[in-house]
Amino acid sequence: MSTAGKVIKSKAAVAYGFKKPLVIEVVEVAPPKAREIRVKVYASGICHTDDHALKGGMASLNFPVILGHEGAGVVESVGEGVFKVQPGDHVILLCSPMCMKCKACLHEDSNFCEKNDVGKNVGLMHDKTTRFSIKGKMIHNFMSTSTFTEYTVVDEFAICKIDKAAPLDQVCLIGCGFATGFGTVLNTAKVKPGSSCVIFGLGGIGMSAVMACKIAGATKIIGVDINPEKFPKAKELGCTECVNPKDHSKPIDEVITEKTNGGADYGFECIGNVDMMVSMIKSTNYAFGSATIIGVPAFTDRLPLDVMWLLTGRTLQGAFLGDYKAPLDFPKLVNELLAGKIDLNALVSFRLPFEDINKGFDLMRNGKAVRTVLLMK
Amino acid sequence: MSTAGKVIKSKAAVAYGFKKPLVIEVVEVAPPKAREIRVKVYASGICHTDDHALKGGMASLNFPVILGHEGAGVVESVGEGVFKVQPGDHVILLCSPMCMKCKACLHEDSNFCEKNDVGKNVGLMHDKTTRFSIKGKMIHNFMSTSTFTEYTVVDEFAICKIDKAAPLDQVCLIGCGFATGFGTVLNTAKVKPGSSCVIFGLGGIGMSAVMACKIAGATKIIGVDINPEKFPKAKELGCTECVNPKDHSKPIDEVITEKTNGGADYGFECIGNVDMMVSMIKSTNYAFGSATIIGVPAFTDRLPLDVMWLLTGRTLQGAFLGDYKAPLDFPKLVNELLAGKIDLNALVSFRLPFEDINKGFDLMRNGKAVRTVLLMK
Repeated sequence: MSTAGKVIKSKAAVAYGFKKPLVIEVVEVAPPKAREIRVKVYASGICHTDDHALKGGMASLNFPVILGHEGAGVVESVGEGVFKVQPGDHVILLCSPMCMKCKACLHEDSNFCEKNDVGKNVGLMHDKTTRFSIKGKMIHNFMSTSTFTEYTVVDEFAICKIDKAAPLDQVCLIGCGFATGFGTVLNTAKVKPGSSCVIFGLGGIGMSAVMACKIAGATKIIGVDINPEKFPKAKELGCTECVNPKDHSKPIDEVITEKTNGGADYGFECIGNVDMMVSMIKSTNYAFGSATIIGVPAFTDRLPLDVMWLLTGRTLQGAFLGDYKAPLDFPKLVNELLAGKIDLNALVSFRLPFEDINKGFDLMRNGKAVRTVLLMK
Repeated sequence: MSTAGKVIKSKAAVAYGFKKPLVIEVVEVAPPKAREIRVKVYASGICHTDDHALKGGMASLNFPVILGHEGAGVVESVGEGVFKVQPGDHVILLCSPMCMKCKACLHEDSNFCEKNDVGKNVGLMHDKTTRFSIKGKMIHNFMSTSTFTEYTVVDEFAICKIDKAAPLDQVCLIGCGFATGFGTVLNTAKVKPGSSCVIFGLGGIGMSAVMACKIAGATKIIGVDINPEKFPKAKELGCTECVNPKDHSKPIDEVITEKTNGGADYGFECIGNVDMMVSMIKSTNYAFGSATIIGVPAFTDRLPLDVMWLLTGRTLQGAFLGDYKAPLDFPKLVNELLAGKIDLNALVSFRLPFEDINKGFDLMRNGKAVRTVLLMK
């Protein structure tokens, strides 16, 4: 019996306040309105950004809220005027949606749509409500997606259709972490063959960056992390060397500068720590280094930039979601996965039943997982 | 009678301490040693960087010192092993010399040679002495050049030969200010036709940046300065509009963002003020803006960077001397001047006798001159 047009009861992990464990609840998910799509979520990665929000690291977050923004699933039903997908289509949810009409969407070098909720964190659909409620009380959504639920409703432009052959418990990572690390190396920094790269932070994003550096042909790929348990996997994925700052008495940027004969060609910060960003910048070559920030610090943090670091010739940049224009590029990444050109499974440390979501957060916080994927079915 | 091989008595402006007026003295200039060149300086621009040093804005400065780094002249004599020029050749002195052997020199995207004295400010030749002295006491040099003197001695790689037809009282500006502003727009930011640009600070560097924006085909070129006396010249050189922050109650970045329908494509800071750098960054489009720092702040200053400004898609970069590889590129700029493609004369507000150097500094400090050129002959 079709559920289209009806309210669906859905298990969801609801956040009721900062730093509190998520609560698995049965919520009500209203049908999609015009130009909206309701999706049965099959798999969702747990990303540091979810925890960042939960810790109060973002400028705002409205409770109660259903977090999660790295998901893949199947279209359950569509609202009026939706033609790009139909029920049964496999999709990746887009935490960086693109309206394809605004100045940013139309610019060749940008993907940060004016409708992106990141930085604003309003947590509402465009009619200023959401489709989630519990006992009559509205629950906010998160990053245009909300994937910690069996069912979610998103705006039409926050979704892309993908090949049905793709494993949803892997391609969900394209929705955020993988694309962010992988794309920033290839699209933003544009790493060249034969170059040296240093990656600060070997979580899901850092590991994806390592994979991209290898694919780009970098010949020296140095991973930096204070947790040496991550080093075997990092080397498996492409690191030619891993360095633990705790093993050195001198500052890590000096260590990297020595190892790269004057500083790395490319640096990436995948943690969200402004002190590490400074170290990363100083680890790149003073005259031509390319320094790229991927990690998101607390919104109150400021990076104390010594302008001379740039005046000698460095470039500093940031990127969101790997500079991918998600609706156009994500289906291509899925095809690359199916063609065996990229290995997402290598990034999945654990697959857990949805109900174990708090355990998944703990694994991430304790540095035990590159990525933990929750399975909703 | 040839002066080669002999000590030359030379008028020079000697700096004896921070914030003190320069003193015109007769100093002794020793003959060039091996791979050094002695130059009769004919013209030297006065640059804010000279004043920056004199005010204590650099990490170090050893007194006494002969400042000046934007000069052109004629080779008087050469030391052993010098083949690139001979007496009588016209030259521009290079405050950003290039050895053409180090990693930076060999890199296609860099010009900041390891032998560059900027940032170190040792003020010595490579044998740890200088060729300047007064009453037996050594005088330091500055930025590999020291142009506030009738005669100077530089390392072979701190010079480039130019066409004798070029007016030395104009091409001296290629040695620093003009190249810095002009080249950063074309080589670093690579401004595209039809774009919008905002230039903070309309001194010699800012005006040169304006000229380059026009040549690059930018269709909106907004100059920002708190001194409206600079606006007519800025408009003559290419500004489509000039804005005085004092005329607006709202922050200047909001004014620029409105005028450019969401932020400029390109921003340039030509002052060396970290608050203005922040305003410049925020004046560029959040999703694809290119923000370039040209001005040099005090070495103790830090720019309090909100990383989110970059994560949404902006790029932040700095450049030294317009990213020109001076020995290769400056002769080409001279040829462009001779071909009428660039107008350096428009940047020269005053030509003063060398002895009036302190008056020249005052004109600069009071915002009365785009550039003042000292004439030594």
